[in-house]
Amino acid sequence: MITLTSDFGLADPYAAEMKGVILTINPNVTIIDVTHSVEKFNVRMGAFVMASAAPYFPKGTVHLAVVDPGVGTERRAILIQTKQGFFVGPDNGVLMLAAQNQGIMHVYEVANSTFMLPKASCTFHGRDVFAPAAAYLDMGVNPSEFGPEIKDPVNPEFASFKQANGVFIGEVLYVDSFGNIITNINPKENIQAKTVNVKIQDFTLKLALGKTYAQAKLQEPIALVGSHGFLEIAINQANAAEKFHVKAGDRVEVSRA
Amino acid sequence: MITLTSDFGLADPYAAEMKGVILTINPNVTIIDVTHSVEKFNVRMGAFVMASAAPYFPKGTVHLAVVDPGVGTERRAILIQTKQGFFVGPDNGVLMLAAQNQGIMHVYEVANSTFMLPKASCTFHGRDVFAPAAAYLDMGVNPSEFGPEIKDPVNPEFASFKQANGVFIGEVLYVDSFGNIITNINPKENIQAKTVNVKIQDFTLKLALGKTYAQAKLQEPIALVGSHGFLEIAINQANAAEKFHVKAGDRVEVSRA
Amino acid sequence: MITLTSDFGLADPYAAEMKGVILTINPNVTIIDVTHSVEKFNVRMGAFVMASAAPYFPKGTVHLAVVDPGVGTERRAILIQTKQGFFVGPDNGVLMLAAQNQGIMHVYEVANSTFMLPKASCTFHGRDVFAPAAAYLDMGVNPSEFGPEIKDPVNPEFASFKQANGVFIGEVLYVDSFGNIITNINPKENIQAKTVNVKIQDFTLKLALGKTYAQAKLQEPIALVGSHGFLEIAINQANAAEKFHVKAGDRVEVSRA
Repeated sequence: MITLTSDFGLADPYAAEMKGVILTINPNVTIIDVTHSVEKFNVRMGAFVMASAAPYFPKGTVHLAVVDPGVGTERRAILIQTKQGFFVGPDNGVLMLAAQNQGIMHVYEVANSTFMLPKASCTFHGRDVFAPAAAYLDMGVNPSEFGPEIKDPVNPEFASFKQANGVFIGEVLYVDSFGNIITNINPKENIQAKTVNVKIQDFTLKLALGKTYAQAKLQEPIALVGSHGFLEIAINQANAAEKFHVKAGDRVEVSRA
Repeated sequence: MITLTSDFGLADPYAAEMKGVILTINPNVTIIDVTHSVEKFNVRMGAFVMASAAPYFPKGTVHLAVVDPGVGTERRAILIQTKQGFFVGPDNGVLMLAAQNQGIMHVYEVANSTFMLPKASCTFHGRDVFAPAAAYLDMGVNPSEFGPEIKDPVNPEFASFKQANGVFIGEVLYVDSFGNIITNINPKENIQAKTVNVKIQDFTLKLALGKTYAQAKLQEPIALVGSHGFLEIAINQANAAEKFHVKAGDRVEVSRA
Repeated sequence: MITLTSDFGLADPYAAEMKGVILTINPNVTIIDVTHSVEKFNVRMGAFVMASAAPYFPKGTVHLAVVDPGVGTERRAILIQTKQGFFVGPDNGVLMLAAQNQGIMHVYEVANSTFMLPKASCTFHGRDVFAPAAAYLDMGVNPSEFGPEIKDPVNPEFASFKQANGVFIGEVLYVDSFGNIITNINPKENIQAKTVNVKIQDFTLKLALGKTYAQAKLQEPIALVGSHGFLEIAINQANAAEKFHVKAGDRVEVSRA
């Protein structure tokens, strides 16, 4: 099984071209779109949606992401082997959040032209380099055959949060289409509190830490650990990001109230 | 085969998470998206798109809908067994229009945690409750194993129209992306008329009752029974809803002219 | 394998209805969406996305396109057999760019009601005529069984460019979601030049002819032959069409500088 995440949008033919390449090599694979509506060149958003979706797919799934502002430059194409499956894409951090969650075993450069389209273009590695690599990986080609192992994949700052004196310090990872503000704070253990102070930019909200949007009154805000494991700030049946003027990248501090 | 209808949009990873859950349980199932672009929390629109699409799928198909403003509250999760297949989703009416068209046999609550994800979240029943239920139903689990039979599923007002003294009284169910105004009036027998009076809100249109958009002159309005069986008002190659300032929920009366 | 291209958008149930029809006839086929976000009634855009995607699919693939402003009129439904596969859709030019690239062998009218839905509607040939035709073609029904061979399919002007005295004369075929300006100029042989003059409307750009967006400085324009084989004008990480006020249909002249 192969999943696809990209910023191609849905009007252009680019995602379909990748699927054609994959199915020509590997006609029996199941291809699932995570999304092609990542904001153009927004590596952080690509990383979030992939990290959110990957845990729900079967062991051995190949996850392919193309959010690739540096295509055609010296940035490497990489393949990450984790304890649960594989990630293929550009070496710009887009794969790291999801791959770290699964436990990274090896990272390889995708450099062997045997596993690329015959005339790989310089503008569309998604189709010419990553799609064939995913197709061959799913068919059982050994990850080490794609190129040399590398030890220094790009590890972006948004891939981890800090914890100091009981304060969680992170950033807004993503605002979803419901307006829920999703942070990169995903503590392994529950935050033992009924109420939290959430500081974003220069204002602080004192919020109940609930389990479901509907625990808040209609149009009232609440903090909760979302279904993807990240702490989020939501408003019951309304758009929290609009109300609080919050956007991806904003610094967030969370502490018990 | 399983179809998916939701208001998740296409940027968020939520629809993909549902697919991952389904394919982990049931790797051989075919999953078809009806749409994930239902307007947020618009149960009526979800009901329409599902009712429109369901008749074209093979017998035994499981139709899953998540338009679920009440997730995490006391609203029930339900499963409807019809003469043609199955419907799974929240008990808020979103399933009823499509299910009634197929002939409802039994309605069960989805309450048996055996057929849910191990740690079902309170915020995302689509993934944790409905998706597994659909996957197991498609594998042949007996509907009655999911929970107790219920006799009072929510039956929304938009699911039926009235007929009195030759006047059909209903409402606008949906405005499609072409601007066609689709009503909930779907008489079993043809309306025997060449011209109809259509009253929406406070104005009345006298329209030819045709069979195809192109029977009207370019930019001219026409009434017809659309391919989904519902009476609709359209303008040939233009947007009828914008021109007539009509929206979903508006009251409609139709009579022979 | 069947691909789908349409202007239905993603909110409406129409694309799903086509899939239901195809899978009811032919449960084992793989269906891939090229896009359903072609601009309403924009035949040129439909032709481009199909021509861009088709080369990447396996031999024998059936490509189905529904961008069909004339549905219900006298315009014919057609099926094109090429050296690589099949194209099904309205006879308005939407299939020609892709089909010509593959080498057209025969064109047939789709007229045999044996291979249509029993009650074909006048408003939705995509579902009632084209979808069944694609499903049966994929199952091996002989193309000549669908209707009489025709010799005069509609051949739109945008399907070819001119070449005179070293000047390539064509038009803007499509502006993709990155803002790249894609022309219909796809010379079989490389343009032997390092710099080209590109005249669009009343202004002329002198541009490096590169191989990748990133060869240009950030925010700087470049000409290149895109991954689909067409000459395009792009700006590295910015929107060329917005900057130069260019739209589909604009006349383009390209010559060596």
